[in-house]
Amino acid sequence: MSFYLEIVKTQAKARVGVFHTPHGDIPTPVFAPVGTQATVKAIPPRDLKEIGATLILANTYHLHLRPGDELIRELGGLHEFMRWDGPILTDSGGFQVFSLAEINRIDDQGVTFRSHLDGSKHRLTPESSIRIQENLGADIIMCFDQCSNPTDRDTLATAVTRTSAWAARCREAHSDDSRQALFGIVQGGIYEDLRAESADFLRELDFPGYAIGGLAVGETKAEMYATLDFTIPMLPDDKPRYLMGVGDPDDLVLAVMRGVDIFDCVTPTRLARHGAALTKDGRINMRNLPYAADKNPVDPDCTCYCCQTFTRAYLRHLVKAGEILGAYLLSIHNVHFLLDHMRAIREAILADRLSDYADSFLRRYLKTG
Amino acid sequence: MSFYLEIVKTQAKARVGVFHTPHGDIPTPVFAPVGTQATVKAIPPRDLKEIGATLILANTYHLHLRPGDELIRELGGLHEFMRWDGPILTDSGGFQVFSLAEINRIDDQGVTFRSHLDGSKHRLTPESSIRIQENLGADIIMCFDQCSNPTDRDTLATAVTRTSAWAARCREAHSDDSRQALFGIVQGGIYEDLRAESADFLRELDFPGYAIGGLAVGETKAEMYATLDFTIPMLPDDKPRYLMGVGDPDDLVLAVMRGVDIFDCVTPTRLARHGAALTKDGRINMRNLPYAADKNPVDPDCTCYCCQTFTRAYLRHLVKAGEILGAYLLSIHNVHFLLDHMRAIREAILADRLSDYADSFLRRYLKTG
Repeated sequence: MSFYLEIVKTQAKARVGVFHTPHGDIPTPVFAPVGTQATVKAIPPRDLKEIGATLILANTYHLHLRPGDELIRELGGLHEFMRWDGPILTDSGGFQVFSLAEINRIDDQGVTFRSHLDGSKHRLTPESSIRIQENLGADIIMCFDQCSNPTDRDTLATAVTRTSAWAARCREAHSDDSRQALFGIVQGGIYEDLRAESADFLRELDFPGYAIGGLAVGETKAEMYATLDFTIPMLPDDKPRYLMGVGDPDDLVLAVMRGVDIFDCVTPTRLARHGAALTKDGRINMRNLPYAADKNPVDPDCTCYCCQTFTRAYLRHLVKAGEILGAYLLSIHNVHFLLDHMRAIREAILADRLSDYADSFLRRYLKTG
Repeated sequence: MSFYLEIVKTQAKARVGVFHTPHGDIPTPVFAPVGTQATVKAIPPRDLKEIGATLILANTYHLHLRPGDELIRELGGLHEFMRWDGPILTDSGGFQVFSLAEINRIDDQGVTFRSHLDGSKHRLTPESSIRIQENLGADIIMCFDQCSNPTDRDTLATAVTRTSAWAARCREAHSDDSRQALFGIVQGGIYEDLRAESADFLRELDFPGYAIGGLAVGETKAEMYATLDFTIPMLPDDKPRYLMGVGDPDDLVLAVMRGVDIFDCVTPTRLARHGAALTKDGRINMRNLPYAADKNPVDPDCTCYCCQTFTRAYLRHLVKAGEILGAYLLSIHNVHFLLDHMRAIREAILADRLSDYADSFLRRYLKTG
C-alpha cells in the first residue's frame, strides 16, 4: 500500500502515528503550512525543510487559474515545479470558489464562477476538480465539496446532500489511490445529524482519509470543539483525520486531544506578513514600541534562524520599514513555532502526558494562568 | 594599520588587491550590494555570505530617520543590529538628501530638508553626518558632499567648492581612522578641471580612500568612462578608489579596466523586485511569455541557489503571482551574478587576460557579437 496510517501510540482519543506516502513519511499529528500559489509565502523550500515541514498544502483553485494545471503537469507536476520533494496535499477548490470567486451558479453538476484575478468565467465540477488535482500530482487530493455557513441549517442540509453526491462522483473519477490518495470531506456545520449523514455516506465510499470541512469559518470555538467531539467518532480509527483550515496554536492541541491527525492553515504566514509573531506567551505585534530597543529574540524559547540570530528591535525595524526580510523571518519563525508545537504534542502523547502539556501550554498562551 | 590596500597584481590600469578592514579582508575589485535600511532587500545575511558578498553598504540618511542612529549605537552598532559581521560601508546622506528629501535650504553650513517618510524637518551638516556614521559604526564612512547635475557646470563649481570645505570639516570631525576609515568624495561632474580641483584638495587631506561621486546620474556612459579616464590618475595609487552608485555589469568591467576598486549599486536587488534577471546574455524580464514552460534555470551558467534549483517557468509564475519568493530568488541570483562577475574579473587580472574577458563578456552581454 502506498498510503497508510501506522498508529504508533494513543493517549485517550489522541494518537501519534506515521502517515506513509509516496513522497515520504509524515509524523502525525502534523501541521501543514499552506503554499497557495505553489510557494509557502516567503519561505524557500530549503528553509521549509530546515524548520521541519513534512507536508505542505497547495490550492487547486489558484493553480488552475494561474499558471494552469495543464502547464504544471507538462512541467512534471507540482513537486517538480516548486521543488518540494516531500508530501503535498491539494484542496479541491471548493472552499476558494465560495470564498474568493464571484459565483454565477451552483447546480447539482458543479459551480460556475468568475475568477478573482481577471473576472474570466470558469466551471468546476467534481470530475474537473479531480482532473486538475491529478494534473497537479499532489500526494493527497480532496473531494470537491460545497461549503456554506456552519450555522445555517437549511443551506447546510442541501450542501451535505450535494457534497455526498459529489464525493461519489469524485471517487468514481479518481479510481486509483495508489499514487494519489483521495480524501472525503465531511460537511454538516455544527449539526450532529448532518455530520452523521455526511460521515455515514463517505464511510461507504471507503476513502483512504477523511477531512472535517466547514469549520473555523464563523462558528464559536466552543461550537467547533463540540462538533469535533461528536464527528470524530463517526470516522474510521485506522484512517487519517484532517481538520481543514485550522491552525491557531490552542486549537491544534485541543483538536489533537479529540483525535485529529492533520491540520493546515494560512495563519502563521499571513500573521508574519502583517508583522505579528507567535510566541508561547501569545501573539505579539512586532510594531509595538516596547520592542524598539529590545535585544531579545522574538521568542526566547525558539531555535529557528530568526530567533537564533536577530533581535526584536531589528525585527520591529524591518516590519516598520516594510522590508521583505521582516516577512521572511517572521514567516519562518511562525511556521517553525507551529511545527515545534506539533513536535511537542507528539512527544507528549508518546510520554502519556498530553493533558499536562495542553494545560501548561494553554495557560501560558491564552494568559489564563 | 587597521585599514590598508594590499595590491596583489596589476594589469594595465586594473588591479587586484585586498582591502584590509577590522571586520575582515575585502578582495578587490569588489561589488557591494546595498542594504539601504540595514538589510540588503530580500536577502538574509546568511544567504549574502553564501553568495560571496564581502562588503555591503547601508544608508546614513535612511537609518538616521528610521530607526535612528542613536538607537542603533545603543543596540551595539550596525554590524550587531543587522547581524552582518563582515565589512560595512555607509554613505554620508548627501546623495539621498538631494534625491529623496524635499530640500528647504542649502548653505555653507549644511542642508535643511524634510524627511521623505513623514515630512519632518531635519538638518545634516558635515559634523552631524560624521556623528551619525560613527553611531552606525560602519568600517568605511564617507564625507558629506553636495551632489548636483553632472553636466551643469555652474552648479557643479559651487558644489565642488562646498564639497571641499565640507570634506575638511569631516576630516576634522573624524580624526581617528583606526576603527572607521573616512573616504573623501571627488565631485566635479564630467569636467576635468573641476575634478582636478576637487581631487587636489582631497589629496591634501590624506584620506584612506577616495570615491568618485556624482556619476551615473544623468550623463552618458561615454561621458562617465571619459570622466574616469581623467579622474583616476588624479587619485593616489596606494588607496582604494570607489565609484559610487555604479553596478551595470558592463560598467563594472569597463571601470575596473580604468582602475576602480570598489562599487555599489541598488540595481541587482531593484531589478529582482521588478522581475528582471541578469544573465550573461543580458537582462531578461521573467514575465515574458516564452519562459512560461521553460525548464531551464534563469541563467544556465549560474551556481546560485535560484539557478541550481528552480526553472524559469517557476520564476515566471512567482513573479506574475507577486510572490515574495520570486523577489528573494531573483535578488539572490542578481547579486550573485555581479559578485561572480567580479570574481571572474579578479581572476582575469591575475592571469593577465582582463581585455579578453572584457571583450567576450561585453560581446555577449551587450549582444554586439
